[in-house]
Amino acid sequence: MTTDRPLQLGMVGLGRMGANLTRRLMRDGHRCVVNDIAPAAVATLVSEGATGAASLAELVGALERPRAVWLMLPAAIVQSTLDRLAELLDEGDTVIDGGNSYYRDDITRAQRLAPRGIHYVDCGTSGGVWGLERGYCLMIGGPEEAVRRLDPIFRTIAPGPGYAEPTPGRTRTGGTAPEGYLHCGPSGAGHFVKMVHNGVEYGMMAAIAEGLSIIAHAGVGKGEQSVDAETTPLRDPQAYQYDIDVAEVAEVWRRGSVVGSWLVDLTADALARSPRLDDFAGRVSDSGEGRWTVLAAVDEGVPAPVITAALQERFASRGQGEFTGKLLSAMRGEFGGHVEKGRS
Amino acid sequence: MTTDRPLQLGMVGLGRMGANLTRRLMRDGHRCVVNDIAPAAVATLVSEGATGAASLAELVGALERPRAVWLMLPAAIVQSTLDRLAELLDEGDTVIDGGNSYYRDDITRAQRLAPRGIHYVDCGTSGGVWGLERGYCLMIGGPEEAVRRLDPIFRTIAPGPGYAEPTPGRTRTGGTAPEGYLHCGPSGAGHFVKMVHNGVEYGMMAAIAEGLSIIAHAGVGKGEQSVDAETTPLRDPQAYQYDIDVAEVAEVWRRGSVVGSWLVDLTADALARSPRLDDFAGRVSDSGEGRWTVLAAVDEGVPAPVITAALQERFASRGQGEFTGKLLSAMRGEFGGHVEKGRS
Amino acid sequence: MTTDRPLQLGMVGLGRMGANLTRRLMRDGHRCVVNDIAPAAVATLVSEGATGAASLAELVGALERPRAVWLMLPAAIVQSTLDRLAELLDEGDTVIDGGNSYYRDDITRAQRLAPRGIHYVDCGTSGGVWGLERGYCLMIGGPEEAVRRLDPIFRTIAPGPGYAEPTPGRTRTGGTAPEGYLHCGPSGAGHFVKMVHNGVEYGMMAAIAEGLSIIAHAGVGKGEQSVDAETTPLRDPQAYQYDIDVAEVAEVWRRGSVVGSWLVDLTADALARSPRLDDFAGRVSDSGEGRWTVLAAVDEGVPAPVITAALQERFASRGQGEFTGKLLSAMRGEFGGHVEKGRS
Amino acid sequence: MTTDRPLQLGMVGLGRMGANLTRRLMRDGHRCVVNDIAPAAVATLVSEGATGAASLAELVGALERPRAVWLMLPAAIVQSTLDRLAELLDEGDTVIDGGNSYYRDDITRAQRLAPRGIHYVDCGTSGGVWGLERGYCLMIGGPEEAVRRLDPIFRTIAPGPGYAEPTPGRTRTGGTAPEGYLHCGPSGAGHFVKMVHNGVEYGMMAAIAEGLSIIAHAGVGKGEQSVDAETTPLRDPQAYQYDIDVAEVAEVWRRGSVVGSWLVDLTADALARSPRLDDFAGRVSDSGEGRWTVLAAVDEGVPAPVITAALQERFASRGQGEFTGKLLSAMRGEFGGHVEKGRS
Repeated sequence: MTTDRPLQLGMVGLGRMGANLTRRLMRDGHRCVVNDIAPAAVATLVSEGATGAASLAELVGALERPRAVWLMLPAAIVQSTLDRLAELLDEGDTVIDGGNSYYRDDITRAQRLAPRGIHYVDCGTSGGVWGLERGYCLMIGGPEEAVRRLDPIFRTIAPGPGYAEPTPGRTRTGGTAPEGYLHCGPSGAGHFVKMVHNGVEYGMMAAIAEGLSIIAHAGVGKGEQSVDAETTPLRDPQAYQYDIDVAEVAEVWRRGSVVGSWLVDLTADALARSPRLDDFAGRVSDSGEGRWTVLAAVDEGVPAPVITAALQERFASRGQGEFTGKLLSAMRGEFGGHVEKGRS
Repeated sequence: MTTDRPLQLGMVGLGRMGANLTRRLMRDGHRCVVNDIAPAAVATLVSEGATGAASLAELVGALERPRAVWLMLPAAIVQSTLDRLAELLDEGDTVIDGGNSYYRDDITRAQRLAPRGIHYVDCGTSGGVWGLERGYCLMIGGPEEAVRRLDPIFRTIAPGPGYAEPTPGRTRTGGTAPEGYLHCGPSGAGHFVKMVHNGVEYGMMAAIAEGLSIIAHAGVGKGEQSVDAETTPLRDPQAYQYDIDVAEVAEVWRRGSVVGSWLVDLTADALARSPRLDDFAGRVSDSGEGRWTVLAAVDEGVPAPVITAALQERFASRGQGEFTGKLLSAMRGEFGGHVEKGRS
Repeated sequence: MTTDRPLQLGMVGLGRMGANLTRRLMRDGHRCVVNDIAPAAVATLVSEGATGAASLAELVGALERPRAVWLMLPAAIVQSTLDRLAELLDEGDTVIDGGNSYYRDDITRAQRLAPRGIHYVDCGTSGGVWGLERGYCLMIGGPEEAVRRLDPIFRTIAPGPGYAEPTPGRTRTGGTAPEGYLHCGPSGAGHFVKMVHNGVEYGMMAAIAEGLSIIAHAGVGKGEQSVDAETTPLRDPQAYQYDIDVAEVAEVWRRGSVVGSWLVDLTADALARSPRLDDFAGRVSDSGEGRWTVLAAVDEGVPAPVITAALQERFASRGQGEFTGKLLSAMRGEFGGHVEKGRS
Repeated sequence: MTTDRPLQLGMVGLGRMGANLTRRLMRDGHRCVVNDIAPAAVATLVSEGATGAASLAELVGALERPRAVWLMLPAAIVQSTLDRLAELLDEGDTVIDGGNSYYRDDITRAQRLAPRGIHYVDCGTSGGVWGLERGYCLMIGGPEEAVRRLDPIFRTIAPGPGYAEPTPGRTRTGGTAPEGYLHCGPSGAGHFVKMVHNGVEYGMMAAIAEGLSIIAHAGVGKGEQSVDAETTPLRDPQAYQYDIDVAEVAEVWRRGSVVGSWLVDLTADALARSPRLDDFAGRVSDSGEGRWTVLAAVDEGVPAPVITAALQERFASRGQGEFTGKLLSAMRGEFGGHVEKGRS
């Protein structure tokens, strides 16, 4: 993974992701200048070899031109940070937004910075807490020239070709995708692909979780069946008498099965640690990309029922379908005199 | 609605539906012999003109041959009652199952009774608590001869041609559909159509409820937006500043709109009585036909995403997606170090 | 329906909807000045009593102040027409957009016109080709004062209280919803409610269509079952032997059933005219409101799986899932050596 | 992978799966007697070291007691083969069904064979064309004793512990899941888990395919926008101007991303071979397990919207939503005078 062309990079935002990116870069010989609102976060990285900067101005001052500054920030504060940073940069400098910005914002930002000769690169970064060791999958958008100049940075951050077997049918030579990073297109293309990546992630996660839930409920025929006008008894209770170890199912699916995946690996790990998942209430967050993926599918007119269902399942898990449910029960009461179960 | 061919009918099961069917029949001159496990229910109908029977045997004994006995029972006890009843019947008699049996059971039951010359008619009955006055929509399956002999019964129970304007494009003369009852086909066909009817009902109900819920949440931009790594702020809060009266929306949709329907009428009524639906927790029951409709669609290979989503939305409303949600939160914790919101 | 307070209104756009609105207004004593890009459309309305205008300027000139101008135009040309019209209007005048504009555009338009004292009212109009006789359901947004001044116009266009039975549980007196029109809130609220109305419409239509399709395929067990490694034979072909008359099912559902609705009325009519629907290929258009409803649900975080599925089913009906399907077949070929059926 | 306890096994059905299982077993020292309706298939395996059998009787005759016979057959002919085979077996013998039988059939079959002392083991087998080298993931159901006796067989067929990194959180010692095979429970449990596995597979495949399709359509804003009453123009065509290399996206997702999986590996391979997938029409087969998974979810009342959507998307891809689409277009024509696009 060693590069013979070390570069200098400013890193703004030293949360889990930003800190680990910095570490991975320094391990490979790149020099990093780091900034964060939390002085302790800066101090930690300084102790590992980075140059600390107490402010954006100090960070910019510590970098040689043409500068490269990587923002690794929550989506909600990228714009304000970028505005302040842009004031400090010069023609030929490059800003990389490595967070989860909406790709439409990338288009606007790049257009605003272009007249001043500042390059804006959007870089979707996948890998989570494991990226420090595994490397991060990078989906990059922006002007060709700026992306090319940063190539040693991307190459270092990415997992590299040894991470996976070569694709047997691949005849194309060249291209950086086999190393784990890809220049997807002009401004916004990187975050567009990352956005969809997360939509795919939602769908895959849901498929795995739903399947294991069906297995976890395979003993439903053992319970007593209520007999009233509201409920039809299970027709074949004898077909649902199983008590299957869901954690072991996840474990066995890791090997040789068609669903083998990193997400199944993680699921097996979570279930090994806590077979009943008692630490969780089941209220699942969603954080932007899933929603934007659905919006894009709607705009494009492309049916994406699976990804969409995965998103809405998360909404429902947080109780956001409550009013809908109340209306349905109310309608049932109106036409059938049904009283909602559990009510008297 | 008066018929000039009054018949005699035995009614077993005097719940809301059975009692009202009996009343509607008696109003039109038919003679009814009634039975129920609750003596008080029998006494009430006797006071309104019916002949009471303390047992199935007494009911059968009070009917002239060829007898007609209508079962109006919860699905869970139809089979056992039918078994006992069948012992008491003779060749040429007819049993009508007016409840919500699974159509596959109809096929089996008809086959078992046929060798003894007993006719079995399955009759899906829609109309709910309003049927006494409005009449009931009847979807009928079974042998031609038995269905034809019971025509005066069905004609009395159905709403009749005056219920709705004639269909403009209809050129076919004859047929009973414009009166509100239909012989759909051989054994099981009636309950098959009723089953799908309920599936359609699920879908329509859900469409209305979801839409009104979207309107009820049209002020979501007024709230404070949380700003953290987990949550992307609403991009356009100014587009969600409405405080719309959902009850009045339902009321206005009743007139002239494309979604005008009995279900919207009922929704408007429910919201007029309780604008916030505080009497409901939003845990929506489902009672067999919706599930069977989905199973039929799957067997047929017909995509039915809307009806299916409506069914699963009910499952979710009752918290049955909890394990799935826990798994999703656990996976998020594994790859992103995300802690489920509300947890520490 | 006669009003004692006739008003004057300019109508721009004399397509089916605009022409019929004009007719309904004139029948009730209102005076209409009409404009359309097609002179013949103007001439027709003039022959029925309207005042013709060959241009927007002429139309504005023919109206007394404060003027009221109703735009009934395809969404794509509303903005350009409004821009030209606004140049001609004076303080105190009102523009009503009666088409299917996106409610967000209403907010922007109202804000732009407000400094000049021109009122902008957004009015979602449902009723289709039947509205001339039945009246139109109106969902109105905009400033209180302008909406109140136009009340006689809205009252004439709406179906009126006789259209449907009063809602039994309604205790509120006053309010215009029982007449079929409703001021839903400030700018955009009318089109927001109309947008969701159309989303509900998509869901209800899909529920009906899916259900009847399941019934239409109830004879699938009669066909020969292919036996190969790719296909599992239907387990219970004997349960799918029906040949049910779908048109008669739609007809019978019109009377007394829970799914009774204007959409079922229309479905029965369509099937009466063409039982096999041979005039249609099944490629279903969607026209904006359904998409926007889904976007709103996603922004609000409200699960709307049924409305969303209805939208995506339309996308799929037009073949827009083709690339997805190709990828799925390609994956199956990769892991299982499966050849897509119909290929060799 | 070498076992020190070689066993003897009869293999019936020498298609791709049966042949490769046999090869993998023989490589590890087990002795195989093979049968197929195609003599050439038997001859091939004989040339590789197996003992050939021209009939089931010959196969049974060539095995020492207690015998073990593995059926690797299309679901449609398992029952008839099993019936004939059972006639030839003795007390203490075991039949393994390694195909894709419905788990309910396993329950019935095991019950029928039990009185004669014949063990029935159901074994879901995942791995496809790659299993010979990678090993097969085995999900096993049936009586403890029979499963334990066959352990060396399962161990050989499974991928083994080296296939994947150990699960970090796993503290449990013992258990065979880390080797890639699992005794899931009593009769039917193996095929139940395999059934759900395939349901999960459907969902994951669909998530990937939908996501890549959204990326493939990211240039939709470049096209001309039609402007008519039926179609709302794309609001932000400038946000859909991308021309992204879908094959390279699949390739880059293989490394370090959250969606990394065998299915993404296969997708990258398929796209490398044929970037536009011109060999496929997009009509996606489904073969039983996906359907049964949905039926189980419905029976259990567990919401599984993602897996269900994936199944129905396949139905739709084969044109099975055509009647639904025709009805929708017919309804649109009724209420709006809309003519289906492409029609005149």
